Amino acid sequence: MNYSAFEAKMKKIADINNATAVLMWDQETYMPKNGDALRSQQIATLSGISHEMMVSNELSDLIEQLAPDKTLTESQQINVMETKIALDKRKKFDTAFIIQMSQTVSNTFIAWQKAKTNNQLSDYLPHLEKLVALKREEAHILGFKDHIYNALVDQYEPDMTVAVLDTLFEEVRKELKPLLDKINASEQVNDSCLKQYFDKDQQWKLGIDLLTRMGYNFDTGRQDISTHPFTTSFSANDVRVTTRVDEHDLANMVWSCIHEGGHALYEQGLPISEYGMPLGEAISLGIHESQSRLWENNIGRSLSYWKYLYPLVQQYFPEQLSQTTLETFYKAMNKVHPSFVRTEADELTYHFHIMIRYEIEKKLMENSLQVKDIKSAWDEMYEKYLGLKVTDDRIGVLQDVHWSHGSFGYFPTYSLGSFFAAQFFEQAQKDIPNLISQIENGDTSALLSWLKTNIHSHGKRYKANALCQKITGSELRLKPFIDYANKKYGAIYGF
Amino acid sequence: MNYSAFEAKMKKIADINNATAVLMWDQETYMPKNGDALRSQQIATLSGISHEMMVSNELSDLIEQLAPDKTLTESQQINVMETKIALDKRKKFDTAFIIQMSQTVSNTFIAWQKAKTNNQLSDYLPHLEKLVALKREEAHILGFKDHIYNALVDQYEPDMTVAVLDTLFEEVRKELKPLLDKINASEQVNDSCLKQYFDKDQQWKLGIDLLTRMGYNFDTGRQDISTHPFTTSFSANDVRVTTRVDEHDLANMVWSCIHEGGHALYEQGLPISEYGMPLGEAISLGIHESQSRLWENNIGRSLSYWKYLYPLVQQYFPEQLSQTTLETFYKAMNKVHPSFVRTEADELTYHFHIMIRYEIEKKLMENSLQVKDIKSAWDEMYEKYLGLKVTDDRIGVLQDVHWSHGSFGYFPTYSLGSFFAAQFFEQAQKDIPNLISQIENGDTSALLSWLKTNIHSHGKRYKANALCQKITGSELRLKPFIDYANKKYGAIYGF
Repeated sequence: MNYSAFEAKMKKIADINNATAVLMWDQETYMPKNGDALRSQQIATLSGISHEMMVSNELSDLIEQLAPDKTLTESQQINVMETKIALDKRKKFDTAFIIQMSQTVSNTFIAWQKAKTNNQLSDYLPHLEKLVALKREEAHILGFKDHIYNALVDQYEPDMTVAVLDTLFEEVRKELKPLLDKINASEQVNDSCLKQYFDKDQQWKLGIDLLTRMGYNFDTGRQDISTHPFTTSFSANDVRVTTRVDEHDLANMVWSCIHEGGHALYEQGLPISEYGMPLGEAISLGIHESQSRLWENNIGRSLSYWKYLYPLVQQYFPEQLSQTTLETFYKAMNKVHPSFVRTEADELTYHFHIMIRYEIEKKLMENSLQVKDIKSAWDEMYEKYLGLKVTDDRIGVLQDVHWSHGSFGYFPTYSLGSFFAAQFFEQAQKDIPNLISQIENGDTSALLSWLKTNIHSHGKRYKANALCQKITGSELRLKPFIDYANKKYGAIYGF
Repeated sequence: MNYSAFEAKMKKIADINNATAVLMWDQETYMPKNGDALRSQQIATLSGISHEMMVSNELSDLIEQLAPDKTLTESQQINVMETKIALDKRKKFDTAFIIQMSQTVSNTFIAWQKAKTNNQLSDYLPHLEKLVALKREEAHILGFKDHIYNALVDQYEPDMTVAVLDTLFEEVRKELKPLLDKINASEQVNDSCLKQYFDKDQQWKLGIDLLTRMGYNFDTGRQDISTHPFTTSFSANDVRVTTRVDEHDLANMVWSCIHEGGHALYEQGLPISEYGMPLGEAISLGIHESQSRLWENNIGRSLSYWKYLYPLVQQYFPEQLSQTTLETFYKAMNKVHPSFVRTEADELTYHFHIMIRYEIEKKLMENSLQVKDIKSAWDEMYEKYLGLKVTDDRIGVLQDVHWSHGSFGYFPTYSLGSFFAAQFFEQAQKDIPNLISQIENGDTSALLSWLKTNIHSHGKRYKANALCQKITGSELRLKPFIDYANKKYGAIYGF
């Protein structure tokens, strides 16, 4: 009886949060220019109502009554406990702190936009400094073991720690740097076949085709155009993706469709019966990213899948691609090339971008690096690891929005996603006989069903590492990714 | 101080209602098929929250404190009083009644959909009977003077009464029926030029063009496709229209664009500073419809505007229209022809469709007609006034959704809209020198500014008839419409 009351309350909160998500989706896709100010107000109002319901005594009382109740089913107990954990965290902050944080984030975000437009890092740093101080305060309010940064990364990747991340990124430096050096010393890949003119409408149709072939269900989703591609969900029955189309770069649309498609398959695969409950939600950002990266990298960038896909793409663009061989195209799609901008990075150099941000934010939090020194730290590491001399902060330390949103601890989940993906995919190949030949025939249905059974359908039933252990027999390791990278790029660059 | 608290509360309620409107807009335009069930739940949740805030003691207490406060500005007093009136009405219903009504409406709506699909009126009538009984109860709860129907029509058109409506529709019968008979006795108009093939994309572009030329602001709005065209607003800075396109009937899209455009200009013209307050809202459905009808009929269907518009339309469709003269096209656009379906009616027979519905729903409410007899009442009047023998209830008494939504008292506002429009337009011609020649040159900016000054900018400051008196020197009269109709159709049909 109490459980139904708890469930009803949670579904109501979900309704409000999902309504907010619709408003944000609309803001990024179709909203007319002048709708912005009041839309932000409408979103703030809904967020406020949802927050009030979440921290209400009514919900707390229900949870207090239900938490010790061992007559609940295991699933019910998980839903109660996961909600309790989230709520206990949220309640640690008083209203004054929440308002101060929200104002500081807002100011920092505006300052970042201006500083990026005017290339004036110095105008931005005082704002970031305030925000960093406040994030440190936040970490202390939340509490942590061993390292202050643990409190922050935990918000995106529960139970992840500096100890684990340090080990992973140490390995990145040890194992990936030599690979990168070997690639740089090899004959470079020519990707000019991707930089031709590719008609927008044709690209759009190809994108829809790619999503459909992945198993994305258009009865429970749709694709639209936005400046920055994203996936959003209003329930497992309405999961939407967006993409962008660059008429002078085919790869842009292809990766964005497959990447967001991977995120969306996760959301479409969550159990609709658990709508609004932790068991109806994704585990963590890292696991979410593992789904997008598995589709984007392990399938989408593989020679096996291109064997199937390339003739199709040639049919979409006969004029541009009929003279280009599969091998040329495949190599072009996998060109490794150190670059300044994270979002344009290939799948290897990407992790150095992340590692650099991780090192900086970790040190900011432990107070071993000052905000005024982030540029020199940034520029130094870009030179050391990627061999690039930053001459413009707009594609240097000012490039990402994350810190200005107060999202410290977020970046590592991008790398975790790729590493989980490699480990999952290694296991999927063991579990599904002939997976690679299925992929060569464009049949990813067994893989999708494997992902659904092993990952999507569980919602938050397991923590990320426990799930990884359950599926692959061990917690997250870098080795599957390193093996994958060495094998694949050895073949492409001929060593 | 209290007024700011009141204002803040009202804006919060508006935020929720506008969020609901976004969800409904999305449902009609872009939502994937399977999103429906949870979307309805999300909408219900938001509506419930908005209702709770509206009837909360907090808001009531504020209003009780503010209502006698004569230090408030006049505008503030109006906002308080109008809210008080709305609230007092809403509070008359207890939760049990609201739930019973909502369930009965829902059941009746489902029964209507089924009955319409299967052409089985008899399956529907028992549901409608329950709903009619409940609507009578609603009227008694609300209270009324003179006639039970007054309580219902007042919800859509405040202060409108059966006495006024009876007089108006009596005049419709007396004045319009002879005109219709004369038209039927004249040589009929050939509208085959409209029934050619008109490419969808070209029509779409023309529609956007028409809206732009009317002064619809695409920085504060947008147009999309939906099955049933509608206008919705999330603030005066985000007012959206939808249209439909029939490739075999050009008129369909043209009227829907101009009609919804008229509604939208009203919403875009409401004062944004009064967002969420009665002074930021439309007066009534009748006045809202007067804006759509003024643009659709008095401008859109006029020879003056087509003198300007037709060459443009010919450019969009040279193949179809280069051999068709302006006169032929203009007459085709104004063909009068009795038909079964209200939404497809011309601007004259339209009012008979409304009159028939009005007579039936009035009698249902006063209990002088039983639900089991609505078909015979309907069919009899269609034969008497439009000369049509109904042989299929799907385009007879089952055609409209309104009654199944519980919207009794809504239909008359459609006719009121046209009548107000004619009276306003007659006055506009007096107030704006050379208005007709401006229209002949496609310049409707002075007219729009007249509408904005005299109507849009006032929000709910005046009641409909008081506004009409203020603008035209008299309350609503049918004469301007009759004069307009006689003059226009006399010229078209040559008598």
